Amino acid sequence: MASEYLPISELIKSRRSIRKFTSEPIDDAMIDQILTAGIWAPSGKNNQPWKFAVIKSEALRKLLAGLTHYTKIIENAPCCIAVFLDHNLSYDRTKDCQAIGACIQNMLLVIHDMGLGAVWLGEILRNKEKVAELLNPESSGLNAPSNLELMAVVALGHPAEKGGKGKRKALDEVMFLRR
Amino acid sequence: MASEYLPISELIKSRRSIRKFTSEPIDDAMIDQILTAGIWAPSGKNNQPWKFAVIKSEALRKLLAGLTHYTKIIENAPCCIAVFLDHNLSYDRTKDCQAIGACIQNMLLVIHDMGLGAVWLGEILRNKEKVAELLNPESSGLNAPSNLELMAVVALGHPAEKGGKGKRKALDEVMFLRR
Repeated sequence: MASEYLPISELIKSRRSIRKFTSEPIDDAMIDQILTAGIWAPSGKNNQPWKFAVIKSEALRKLLAGLTHYTKIIENAPCCIAVFLDHNLSYDRTKDCQAIGACIQNMLLVIHDMGLGAVWLGEILRNKEKVAELLNPESSGLNAPSNLELMAVVALGHPAEKGGKGKRKALDEVMFLRR
Repeated sequence: MASEYLPISELIKSRRSIRKFTSEPIDDAMIDQILTAGIWAPSGKNNQPWKFAVIKSEALRKLLAGLTHYTKIIENAPCCIAVFLDHNLSYDRTKDCQAIGACIQNMLLVIHDMGLGAVWLGEILRNKEKVAELLNPESSGLNAPSNLELMAVVALGHPAEKGGKGKRKALDEVMFLRR
């Protein structure tokens, strides 16, 4: 299934949101490769404003799943990566959110290239404070949870569905000037 | 120079900001391929909140260059892509900024894969209203300029420098939980 060496344009266009996964686990080496792709995104002043929590434990996933309408996706995904904005590192919210989007996109592309599937979940942000509490990083000594704002959860695993067709507007609808 | 079929993880890690370009122009087919990669980014509710202005004209680039400290970069880049958030399509600023970051990252990766170079410029946002006026899309009938908010300018061309070393924190500095 892995699409190794697929040209990048094809990789980008063939990626789809995958919401159903097999029970096959994701090993830590894969997760490290995915996160490494994420952190090589550019950021304004190279401030690298992202922080990550990797959730594989079934018990913790069940608690996380209770904080979104998309319960089943998180319950059935063997791995979730919660992506946070670290306010201690933030310098411009607009630019920091863009950088985090670039980081997530890198991860999605590498996940797809590995033959895995993922979905970028945003609805859970309505419970972002509760997610930050649940994944409380205080014990790690890295940060007080109040400094971390949830930006997205990426649920991933081995795909058990093909994904949708993918629809985009035509270029001439989105490019208003070429001079 | 084109790094076709470079594995995606390598492509991501080898990308650097390029700020000096040769005078060789960028043809429209390349620009279309770059923008196509951009619009295949995911966005919340697939709202595709981005709009683009492609600036190749020397006269227009000089005016744009006057709106940033990074005058020389824009003056000497054969092409600039200004990326806007379309407020008519926006539904959640945080998520829309993330989607636009994902879109820009797709473009940067394809640019790098083509053997071209680019830099993501954010400082120019301090003059975002003036940029929107300069690139006024009213004549295109697409949008009133007030609906468009500048998110970034990507300056690109054939590289005339190698780019920096690229530094990132270690994974264990950015991952606060793995359970």
